[in-house]
Amino acid sequence: MNQGGFFEKIYAQVYAYVTDADMWVNIGMIVLKIAAIILLSRIVVSVVQSGVNKVFQHRHGSKIQMDQRRVDTMRVLVNNVVQYGIYFLSILMILQLLGIDLRPVLVSAGVLGLAVGFGAQSLVRDIITGFFIIFEDQFAVGDVVTINNLTGTVQEIGLRITKVRSWTGEVHIFPNGTINQVTNFSLQNTLAVVDVSVAYEEDLNQVESVLKEVLASAQTELTDIVAEPQILGVHALGPSEVIIRVTAECKPNTHHGVNRNLRAKIRTELTNRGIQIPYPKIVAVSGKGTV
Amino acid sequence: MNQGGFFEKIYAQVYAYVTDADMWVNIGMIVLKIAAIILLSRIVVSVVQSGVNKVFQHRHGSKIQMDQRRVDTMRVLVNNVVQYGIYFLSILMILQLLGIDLRPVLVSAGVLGLAVGFGAQSLVRDIITGFFIIFEDQFAVGDVVTINNLTGTVQEIGLRITKVRSWTGEVHIFPNGTINQVTNFSLQNTLAVVDVSVAYEEDLNQVESVLKEVLASAQTELTDIVAEPQILGVHALGPSEVIIRVTAECKPNTHHGVNRNLRAKIRTELTNRGIQIPYPKIVAVSGKGTV
Amino acid sequence: MNQGGFFEKIYAQVYAYVTDADMWVNIGMIVLKIAAIILLSRIVVSVVQSGVNKVFQHRHGSKIQMDQRRVDTMRVLVNNVVQYGIYFLSILMILQLLGIDLRPVLVSAGVLGLAVGFGAQSLVRDIITGFFIIFEDQFAVGDVVTINNLTGTVQEIGLRITKVRSWTGEVHIFPNGTINQVTNFSLQNTLAVVDVSVAYEEDLNQVESVLKEVLASAQTELTDIVAEPQILGVHALGPSEVIIRVTAECKPNTHHGVNRNLRAKIRTELTNRGIQIPYPKIVAVSGKGTV
Amino acid sequence: MNQGGFFEKIYAQVYAYVTDADMWVNIGMIVLKIAAIILLSRIVVSVVQSGVNKVFQHRHGSKIQMDQRRVDTMRVLVNNVVQYGIYFLSILMILQLLGIDLRPVLVSAGVLGLAVGFGAQSLVRDIITGFFIIFEDQFAVGDVVTINNLTGTVQEIGLRITKVRSWTGEVHIFPNGTINQVTNFSLQNTLAVVDVSVAYEEDLNQVESVLKEVLASAQTELTDIVAEPQILGVHALGPSEVIIRVTAECKPNTHHGVNRNLRAKIRTELTNRGIQIPYPKIVAVSGKGTV
Amino acid sequence: MNQGGFFEKIYAQVYAYVTDADMWVNIGMIVLKIAAIILLSRIVVSVVQSGVNKVFQHRHGSKIQMDQRRVDTMRVLVNNVVQYGIYFLSILMILQLLGIDLRPVLVSAGVLGLAVGFGAQSLVRDIITGFFIIFEDQFAVGDVVTINNLTGTVQEIGLRITKVRSWTGEVHIFPNGTINQVTNFSLQNTLAVVDVSVAYEEDLNQVESVLKEVLASAQTELTDIVAEPQILGVHALGPSEVIIRVTAECKPNTHHGVNRNLRAKIRTELTNRGIQIPYPKIVAVSGKGTV
Amino acid sequence: MNQGGFFEKIYAQVYAYVTDADMWVNIGMIVLKIAAIILLSRIVVSVVQSGVNKVFQHRHGSKIQMDQRRVDTMRVLVNNVVQYGIYFLSILMILQLLGIDLRPVLVSAGVLGLAVGFGAQSLVRDIITGFFIIFEDQFAVGDVVTINNLTGTVQEIGLRITKVRSWTGEVHIFPNGTINQVTNFSLQNTLAVVDVSVAYEEDLNQVESVLKEVLASAQTELTDIVAEPQILGVHALGPSEVIIRVTAECKPNTHHGVNRNLRAKIRTELTNRGIQIPYPKIVAVSGKGTV
Amino acid sequence: MNQGGFFEKIYAQVYAYVTDADMWVNIGMIVLKIAAIILLSRIVVSVVQSGVNKVFQHRHGSKIQMDQRRVDTMRVLVNNVVQYGIYFLSILMILQLLGIDLRPVLVSAGVLGLAVGFGAQSLVRDIITGFFIIFEDQFAVGDVVTINNLTGTVQEIGLRITKVRSWTGEVHIFPNGTINQVTNFSLQNTLAVVDVSVAYEEDLNQVESVLKEVLASAQTELTDIVAEPQILGVHALGPSEVIIRVTAECKPNTHHGVNRNLRAKIRTELTNRGIQIPYPKIVAVSGKGTV
Repeated sequence: MNQGGFFEKIYAQVYAYVTDADMWVNIGMIVLKIAAIILLSRIVVSVVQSGVNKVFQHRHGSKIQMDQRRVDTMRVLVNNVVQYGIYFLSILMILQLLGIDLRPVLVSAGVLGLAVGFGAQSLVRDIITGFFIIFEDQFAVGDVVTINNLTGTVQEIGLRITKVRSWTGEVHIFPNGTINQVTNFSLQNTLAVVDVSVAYEEDLNQVESVLKEVLASAQTELTDIVAEPQILGVHALGPSEVIIRVTAECKPNTHHGVNRNLRAKIRTELTNRGIQIPYPKIVAVSGKGTV
Repeated sequence: MNQGGFFEKIYAQVYAYVTDADMWVNIGMIVLKIAAIILLSRIVVSVVQSGVNKVFQHRHGSKIQMDQRRVDTMRVLVNNVVQYGIYFLSILMILQLLGIDLRPVLVSAGVLGLAVGFGAQSLVRDIITGFFIIFEDQFAVGDVVTINNLTGTVQEIGLRITKVRSWTGEVHIFPNGTINQVTNFSLQNTLAVVDVSVAYEEDLNQVESVLKEVLASAQTELTDIVAEPQILGVHALGPSEVIIRVTAECKPNTHHGVNRNLRAKIRTELTNRGIQIPYPKIVAVSGKGTV
Repeated sequence: MNQGGFFEKIYAQVYAYVTDADMWVNIGMIVLKIAAIILLSRIVVSVVQSGVNKVFQHRHGSKIQMDQRRVDTMRVLVNNVVQYGIYFLSILMILQLLGIDLRPVLVSAGVLGLAVGFGAQSLVRDIITGFFIIFEDQFAVGDVVTINNLTGTVQEIGLRITKVRSWTGEVHIFPNGTINQVTNFSLQNTLAVVDVSVAYEEDLNQVESVLKEVLASAQTELTDIVAEPQILGVHALGPSEVIIRVTAECKPNTHHGVNRNLRAKIRTELTNRGIQIPYPKIVAVSGKGTV
Repeated sequence: MNQGGFFEKIYAQVYAYVTDADMWVNIGMIVLKIAAIILLSRIVVSVVQSGVNKVFQHRHGSKIQMDQRRVDTMRVLVNNVVQYGIYFLSILMILQLLGIDLRPVLVSAGVLGLAVGFGAQSLVRDIITGFFIIFEDQFAVGDVVTINNLTGTVQEIGLRITKVRSWTGEVHIFPNGTINQVTNFSLQNTLAVVDVSVAYEEDLNQVESVLKEVLASAQTELTDIVAEPQILGVHALGPSEVIIRVTAECKPNTHHGVNRNLRAKIRTELTNRGIQIPYPKIVAVSGKGTV
Repeated sequence: MNQGGFFEKIYAQVYAYVTDADMWVNIGMIVLKIAAIILLSRIVVSVVQSGVNKVFQHRHGSKIQMDQRRVDTMRVLVNNVVQYGIYFLSILMILQLLGIDLRPVLVSAGVLGLAVGFGAQSLVRDIITGFFIIFEDQFAVGDVVTINNLTGTVQEIGLRITKVRSWTGEVHIFPNGTINQVTNFSLQNTLAVVDVSVAYEEDLNQVESVLKEVLASAQTELTDIVAEPQILGVHALGPSEVIIRVTAECKPNTHHGVNRNLRAKIRTELTNRGIQIPYPKIVAVSGKGTV
Repeated sequence: MNQGGFFEKIYAQVYAYVTDADMWVNIGMIVLKIAAIILLSRIVVSVVQSGVNKVFQHRHGSKIQMDQRRVDTMRVLVNNVVQYGIYFLSILMILQLLGIDLRPVLVSAGVLGLAVGFGAQSLVRDIITGFFIIFEDQFAVGDVVTINNLTGTVQEIGLRITKVRSWTGEVHIFPNGTINQVTNFSLQNTLAVVDVSVAYEEDLNQVESVLKEVLASAQTELTDIVAEPQILGVHALGPSEVIIRVTAECKPNTHHGVNRNLRAKIRTELTNRGIQIPYPKIVAVSGKGTV
Repeated sequence: MNQGGFFEKIYAQVYAYVTDADMWVNIGMIVLKIAAIILLSRIVVSVVQSGVNKVFQHRHGSKIQMDQRRVDTMRVLVNNVVQYGIYFLSILMILQLLGIDLRPVLVSAGVLGLAVGFGAQSLVRDIITGFFIIFEDQFAVGDVVTINNLTGTVQEIGLRITKVRSWTGEVHIFPNGTINQVTNFSLQNTLAVVDVSVAYEEDLNQVESVLKEVLASAQTELTDIVAEPQILGVHALGPSEVIIRVTAECKPNTHHGVNRNLRAKIRTELTNRGIQIPYPKIVAVSGKGTV
């Protein structure tokens, strides 16, 4: 192999290299693949974006209401994220086709992504819980519910947050993921419960007959009561009073008003019949001498 | 190798390339594999979908009731997720066959999947716990249970949530994963417990004999009592009263009513026999002088 | 290489390809491997299933009782999961032998598996804790225990849940993983503790001698007391009373009854000896003038 | 191959190596790739930095206010982090091109990154929650809100923290990620609630007519009241008093003042009409003898 | 290459393949490796098992006591787990030598292992904490300790659980991992603390001199007191009494008895010297008129 | 190939191997790479160390003060960690160049690193939170703040911990990561709030005019009051008293003193004007007979 | 190739294989590498062990005291773990050199390691926190500190646990990782705070002048007081008393004694000057009639 001149040889080899069909075909393949990736990423972007747009249009007239301005902001945001994400992936794939090892970039992106993923998990949980609240009809707008010990009327159910208006007017806002336990007062008839205190000295039979009269008249007067009120009996024996419990089944979430009405009626009637208020009683014994 | 013209040589090589059987066989193999993947993914989709449909049909007449509209919504949703998921995987596998490195896409999808997985873990926990609640018969629809300090009648047991109706009518909704501890009142006879307070001055033997009479008559009158009621004895010594505890085994979850009945009967009879109410007693000593 | 016709050449190459022994041997190897995988997976399935069946038969007559219907349900379920899991793995391995890259499928399955794994960790923890509760004999069926502030008689210890029957009849159900702290009343003699209140004016020596007499007679009368009761001395000085503590070692978990007995005996005897009830005392000084 | 001298042979081979075009082309490719990476990293740095600068300029006149000094500090910090991060990645990629295996470095960086990622997840959560608070208009600067049981006027909403000024002047600072539940008093009319106590001996009808007069005059006097005040009725029966609840819908967050006004008016008017203060009542029975 | 018949050619190639020494050597190598793996796994199994057996024998006469039956159960269990685990790994390695790609199996096993690992982390934490409790001598069997607000005598310290016997006889069982904070009463002298209440009217100097006498005599009488008791002074000013605090250093964990003794002695002596009980005092002013 | 003797042949091949330029070039490359790694690691070490030294010098005169001894300790520690870490990585990379597979080491290091990373995440969170506390000026040294329900003057803000000096002198030390909620009293004027109780019998108008006089004189006397004090009105109706609320805006964190001053002035003036103390009032009714 | 006999051919090929220098060189390389790994692992073991020994010797005379027996136990333990760990890694690396794929082993070890790592994270956190407690001088042995609501004198600060001796003698043991918040009483002067109650009827000016006298004499008598005591003024208005707050700056952690002294002095002096005890006052109005 030593016969020719050095440069001739180099020339010959470079020439052979340049005229090597394999290499050209190879380069052609890579160029084709890059073109395919670019084309594909454009198609994916437009498909996903039209999907996103459709999703955001669908929301009108659906269960979840969002005002137009916010929908548009969100749509643009999601579209941008989708677009930049897909183009970023395309660039990475093209770089790899060109033979540049991307593992450092991938590890970095993965770690960054994990940090974001950890931080975003409460967002994901909010949305999943929100979906199930709507899907399972746990409560609807207008229902009276207790969520995390706060009670009010549901004002808005969103995918991420739920708004509940307290009866005193303030609005409680809950991320859906924190809604661990819901109590709904609007699904079933509720029960008005009145505890009547009378002194130990009263005749319980007389008290009961008075209560029966009052409850009978209450049932006719109060339309919210849907079944004959019940006298449950002696609920407890206090230090100075006997407590008799009375219940009345009412239409859903009307028990507060019925409660107040029954309480007033019962108290008035008891007083009219001479059944006294059981004020706290104490037995005072005189101690010997003075101190 | 320098003897022929440049283009001739290129032509010869491209010709050799094009007429290379290996390459054609190779291309044929790839085409075959792509076809196989497409076919396979279609088969998998239809198999999984028919399985999904079967699962959702099976639910009728089973322990878990869902209304038809919601079942259909869910079925369509699951079918869509399955379909898009499998097609997405097929496209990835085809791209890889074409020699495009998909690691960037896989890392991205993995990180995204992890974020969703973290957020979805409470959903998975709900379903696993729901399965075991049903499998282990922890409670059934109609049982009276206490879950997380809220008591009521079980209305609905689902895979994800359980609904419990309080005796006052509100409905508590628990994600199954938050049900850490269940107390079931409907599995065993329950015990009515009445604490009777009498003054220190009374004769305990007399009190006990009165109680025995009352309990004997109560056992015959109240059909919910299933065993002879017991006088446990002096439960506590209060500041002004002796507290005697009385118990009666009743049919499951009937102890509230028995309690009230026993309380009324005992109090009435004690008063009839002249055993006084132990009002709080205080010894007042006069201090010297005035202030 | 340009001498022959194009199709002749293609034909020659395809012919060479088809008659290439390497390829046939290769294909043969792959077919053999696929057969091996199928055979192996069938063997593994049947071995595991017979193991599963054996495990579920063994449970009869063991510490953990499950009723037959539930055991069968579980056995079928586990067998199905094992069968589908192994066949799924076999299909994946065969696809890989055929040269289809499965990384997309693996990443998806891994992420899905992680989500399920996160959600299932409380199930795993329940079972591990359940195993150790049984292995370490922390409590046995029939023991009286306090778990998470709820007390009752252990009714059933399972691998996943433990059932405890309260003395009032309700059944508490605990997933084993939530049992962080157990108090067992049935392992050792328990102590009955009675706090006796007497007025400051009484002679403590006389009180003590009365208590000694009562305790001596109690020890002979009550067979649950296993050692001579102790007068610990002045436990506290209340606003109007001296509190003297008395203890009696009893057989395991009999202290409630002994407590009640001692309380009645002591109170009766003290009253008989003229030692008064220490009613709350107050010194009332008259303020100057009126308001 | 044994014919030539040893060194001649070595020389010949080294010569062949050195004059091997493949190697030179290869080296050329690597140099080209390194140049490309350097160029690319510079471009990426400047693009990202101009983006960062733009982002920090955009913040002026937007919802989130930051003072100029802090914006500049942050901008420089982010630019530095971006610059060093990208250059570090470039160096890693160049080292890999030179054939140095970087897995040890990558594993170390990954583990370090994970530790930081875990620690930083609360930062990520703060920012995500902050974004949604602003996006969903949960509250605005100037609203009166209760966050985590602390109430005050919103002073500043940032991406990471929210500042709320209590009515007594202290400033509460919440990382957004800890804001689990918001109560907003400025979105809806709020309700003034006054509980009026009267003695059991009073005539409830007379009390009600007095209350009606007071409320009517209050509605005309107090401009914050937006609807006719309501007398809800007997809210509770206390030991010595009847509690009547009165409500008045007011403009958002004005209920504190209205409450105070109504309370004063009602109390004054009731006293004027001779309806007494229901001081706690006690029934004192004389005990027999002295102690 | 077209000259011979097709089957001749196949035969020739198969023959060449079969007589290819490389392949035979290769197969020989694989067979050797498989034999090595089987041998190695057997050796590892027996080494590990003898180690396990040794570990379980060593436990006799050590700090951690386990009864023989349980040790044997555990030994067999661990041996089985080790044996099956190592054989499972050997089979996987042999399959890989045979050219079967095991990634699907590995990913599945990894995910399953992670789920178990997550669930088992509290077991690992129990054992690590248990090791340190023993290593650091935090408490020993017989010490009186408070763990998680429950006090008692340490009965057993195990690697996973610790048993503490309350003074009333019940046994508390703590997984070591839940022991976050230990209070040990048996390491140091403990302090008896008595709070003496006297009326405001008493002369504090006289009270102090009485207390000094009592404490001096107590120090000689009670052998548990190890240092001269201290009168700390006026600890608090109650509504009707001055509270003087007295302390006495006692031998470890004897303060309960000393407390009771001191309390009785002090109270008796104070009464003997005419220092009165400070009953709650109230100034009663007569209100004008009647209600 | 069978013609020569065996050893001749071996010799020939070894000779060929030894004189193979490729191998020598290859070895040369590896030696070069090792040299490069050693050089690079030295450069990195010295660059990072000089950076570390610079960072620790910069801290003088900055917001975060550390005393010199501790800074030096930390600097040496960080330098050592950096040095050993980089050298460890270099050795790993050199071993890999020599063809030793390091995956076992990497997996071990990764798992160890993860365990440390998990344990160190609270350290990372402390530092990140500390950075933001300083960057966002949440509080400065000297401010009075409430952190986690403990109030005091900020004494030191560090990257990891914050020290707050309570007004009674003890120093609270908080890791920054546990500071979830900060209340700063030094940013805004604070409000002195005095609740004045008067009897129901007093004339509210007269009380109000007295209060106005007192507040007017207080505003002139107390320089900490920055705005005219307000009489908010009837804050609550107690059982025996009307509570009137008075507020005065003061300079930041001076409200405690102003509160005390106002309270004394108001009480003195009210007494001077004959407005009585509203002592708790009780209506005592005589019960029939004696008990 | 068909000319020779079959066995001749096999023989020839095997001969060629055996005399192939490449293979021998290859085998030689592997043997060399194995030798290198064994040598390296021995060196690493002895280096690390001497380091470990050095670390454990260094601990004498340092801040962290451990008794000799425990140090030796720990040293042997750490040495064993290091030795077995490194040998285990060496064996894995040698197996890999021999061409056995270790991925199954690595995945298993990784998962096991993760489980241990999760369980060990509280150990890591303890040590990291312990390091910072010592490094930052949060408290020293002998300081009086409050950790997690338990107060006492620091007795021992270790890398994993801290021991605090309560003033009543029990020893609290905290793992360092649970120390979230430290209050140190020994760093700064502490403040004695005495709240003095006087009746509303007393002249506040006279009270103040008495207090001034007492405080002046206390400052000269009590050497723990380091600054002139302050009368802060009217701290609160109780139902029957005015509460005046007095403070005195004392040497670190001496405020308990000063408090008691001041309380006694003030009370005595007030009584001497005729300023009465403000006993709770009540206005008793007679109710009409009897009940």
